[in-house]
Amino acid sequence: MTSLPTYTIGICGFGTVGQGVWKHLTRARATIEARLGAKLVLARASVRDLKKVRGVKIPAAKLTADPLAIATDPKIDIVCELMGGTGLAREVTLAALARGKIVISANKALICAHGAEIFATARKHGGHFFFEASVAGGIPLIKALREGLVANRFTRIYGILNGTCNYILTQMEEHDAPYATVLADAKRLGYAEADESLDVDGWDTAHKAAVLAWLAHGMWVQPDRMIVEGISRITPADFKTAATLGYGIKLLAVITRDHATDELSVRVQPTLLPEGNVLANVSGVFNAVSVTGDVVGTTLYIGRGAGQDATASAVISDIGDAVALLRHGKGAHHMGDDAPLCSDCRLAPPERIRGRYYVRLSVKDQPGVLARVASVMAKHHVSIASVIQTPSERAGAASLVLTTHESDERAIRATLKNLGGLASVLEEPVLLRIGDFND
Amino acid sequence: MTSLPTYTIGICGFGTVGQGVWKHLTRARATIEARLGAKLVLARASVRDLKKVRGVKIPAAKLTADPLAIATDPKIDIVCELMGGTGLAREVTLAALARGKIVISANKALICAHGAEIFATARKHGGHFFFEASVAGGIPLIKALREGLVANRFTRIYGILNGTCNYILTQMEEHDAPYATVLADAKRLGYAEADESLDVDGWDTAHKAAVLAWLAHGMWVQPDRMIVEGISRITPADFKTAATLGYGIKLLAVITRDHATDELSVRVQPTLLPEGNVLANVSGVFNAVSVTGDVVGTTLYIGRGAGQDATASAVISDIGDAVALLRHGKGAHHMGDDAPLCSDCRLAPPERIRGRYYVRLSVKDQPGVLARVASVMAKHHVSIASVIQTPSERAGAASLVLTTHESDERAIRATLKNLGGLASVLEEPVLLRIGDFND
Repeated sequence: MTSLPTYTIGICGFGTVGQGVWKHLTRARATIEARLGAKLVLARASVRDLKKVRGVKIPAAKLTADPLAIATDPKIDIVCELMGGTGLAREVTLAALARGKIVISANKALICAHGAEIFATARKHGGHFFFEASVAGGIPLIKALREGLVANRFTRIYGILNGTCNYILTQMEEHDAPYATVLADAKRLGYAEADESLDVDGWDTAHKAAVLAWLAHGMWVQPDRMIVEGISRITPADFKTAATLGYGIKLLAVITRDHATDELSVRVQPTLLPEGNVLANVSGVFNAVSVTGDVVGTTLYIGRGAGQDATASAVISDIGDAVALLRHGKGAHHMGDDAPLCSDCRLAPPERIRGRYYVRLSVKDQPGVLARVASVMAKHHVSIASVIQTPSERAGAASLVLTTHESDERAIRATLKNLGGLASVLEEPVLLRIGDFND
Repeated sequence: MTSLPTYTIGICGFGTVGQGVWKHLTRARATIEARLGAKLVLARASVRDLKKVRGVKIPAAKLTADPLAIATDPKIDIVCELMGGTGLAREVTLAALARGKIVISANKALICAHGAEIFATARKHGGHFFFEASVAGGIPLIKALREGLVANRFTRIYGILNGTCNYILTQMEEHDAPYATVLADAKRLGYAEADESLDVDGWDTAHKAAVLAWLAHGMWVQPDRMIVEGISRITPADFKTAATLGYGIKLLAVITRDHATDELSVRVQPTLLPEGNVLANVSGVFNAVSVTGDVVGTTLYIGRGAGQDATASAVISDIGDAVALLRHGKGAHHMGDDAPLCSDCRLAPPERIRGRYYVRLSVKDQPGVLARVASVMAKHHVSIASVIQTPSERAGAASLVLTTHESDERAIRATLKNLGGLASVLEEPVLLRIGDFND
């Protein structure tokens, strides 16, 4: 019997995901160790409250309230940072990397905010930073991009990256239910956080889009430089109108690069997707990502984007890569961990982000309104493709939905600003994008 | 400037895929070399006919008619076997592996027939065998299974693995066109081979299922030990009847393992899929695979399953893994190349392969036939779920479609044999499976 090398793992943050990693590594230890060719020791886990009762039990001696003690423990080879947040999580990550350890993270907010610093620290001290669990949960998307599709330059990556939003949108569509009702239900069921804004306003999706954009294009794009829009103003009527037009509505991250001009666009937007598009039919808490490369064409990836088990699957996949690296030196990834697939791009200015738009206006129900709206759009050279007028719940008001031919972000924003100022327009206009993606 | 290590590649078989690999490695050389941290030299390619004019031009001095000269060339590190077939391709593969080289293959027929020998040879001589391109074309499915989902035991893997069949089925469904007409069109368009049997009779899908079954479960299952059924007896009327019942029809490879009994089932069957199932909506030459693991749940992968560019993308991904291995020693994969994810299973006997069935009978259009059919089914304890009778093109005949409640392969086969012997049944019964897969 050959004796296997042993590697020691510390878990910082023993919440849902941390407990999932511990549970599955313990439960399937023999199988996973056989696959990896190494013994794994779960040495320590850190918690905020040592007294709290948890679903996954571990010996008290293995618990600590100090995650930095794990990050700096010379006996620990692999540190899983599963605490969340960008304060202490950053300290823990940098401390472990500065000691040449491997850090595995599910923390997209941290990577988005401090990715450049994290990778620089890893490079300087010989540490490594893996992050499969940070985007699209259990789907091995990061590995697909950087290894499986290494032959490709990426022209377009778009996807449903937030299960909470997709659950809410699916419920609204299927049950003709208003946003506020569905959100309240989602909170009760544990599908939405008490403070929902990180999810429903698009910021969580933006953090994940930032990770993908960096990986594929080598540029750290902060959310404040993206177009980020949430789902809170979508109504059940929007789903009906979209269906009339042959579309579903999804919150998408969209990352496009024009390889001729090397201009990159990263945006998070509720988007009308043709009902034949696979992603239009991905419902509930699932994530789905479409990746178009210049060699492979379009590939799609669908799976659970969050939750204890799916996220643990991704973290354990990174533990597998970590073990391969510890056993054989570099080589778990084709490239260094911090090497993006492409570089040399810049953000596209709004006038070069082109698309079609869905604009919903609440207007006074009186003659001449459409003429005024149409003349504003004509002024900005935004050409109308269709107009649907429906009754409004508001007395004396009507709902006017306009779709446009192709225009650009600068023109549509100027149009909306102008429309919002009309006396006959009663509320701030609602803007959705039309994603005429066939795959 | 650091000097990069240089690795030398030989291509055995300069057909569609071989030319694709050469073309993309040449076109995107700078990007790919930067990603891999290595220089790549395309040294030689072998062809059957040195005089033939090809789309991708290479210097005559790099061409040889002898693939074994490439396999045994001491200057070549990585041999891409893209010839196809199981004769000379086997010799080339074994010769290269016996010299400790890395062999990259897209050849599912070869792996299915000689996988055990190939991996044993690699292990004995320190060679390596990579095969991402052998299943599902450009989708990085092999990597997803063995690395991205390393935490999982696989309960079910099913998918559309043959683009030719999916193209034919899609055309039949969309255009209400008979099999023979669509097949003839497909041949004219180059979507089907002159001899179509490898594709339409399910053998190509079976070869790919064998590769997946071995990888996930550690058992080499030859097609003659699988249930393998093709698509040639499906009619446009079957699509209509299936649609009435809420299903589409796809040729699927289905690999299931019961981890309680460790019984494995590998089969290739035209299958009714609920119309809400994502795979039911994957049309044309695309491949799609659903993978259910005990940790991650179900993940789906969709992309082009064949063609010059998609297959080249997968071969170049393997070249990336090969370079990582050459640079850093072992470690491109978590496990050895020849280590399956699980083992210790045996084939399930037919009576434990359970499912629901769709049976179409061409019967004499006269009273009493349904009673006779029903009594045969009752005798075998196969319970009828629905009966749909439609007119037949054949004079004096009717088409009788029965769906069943859950039964098993042994019972349904005995039933079909018995039904086929009835005087009122005019043709051999057509059997399709009902795949009540919700994801």
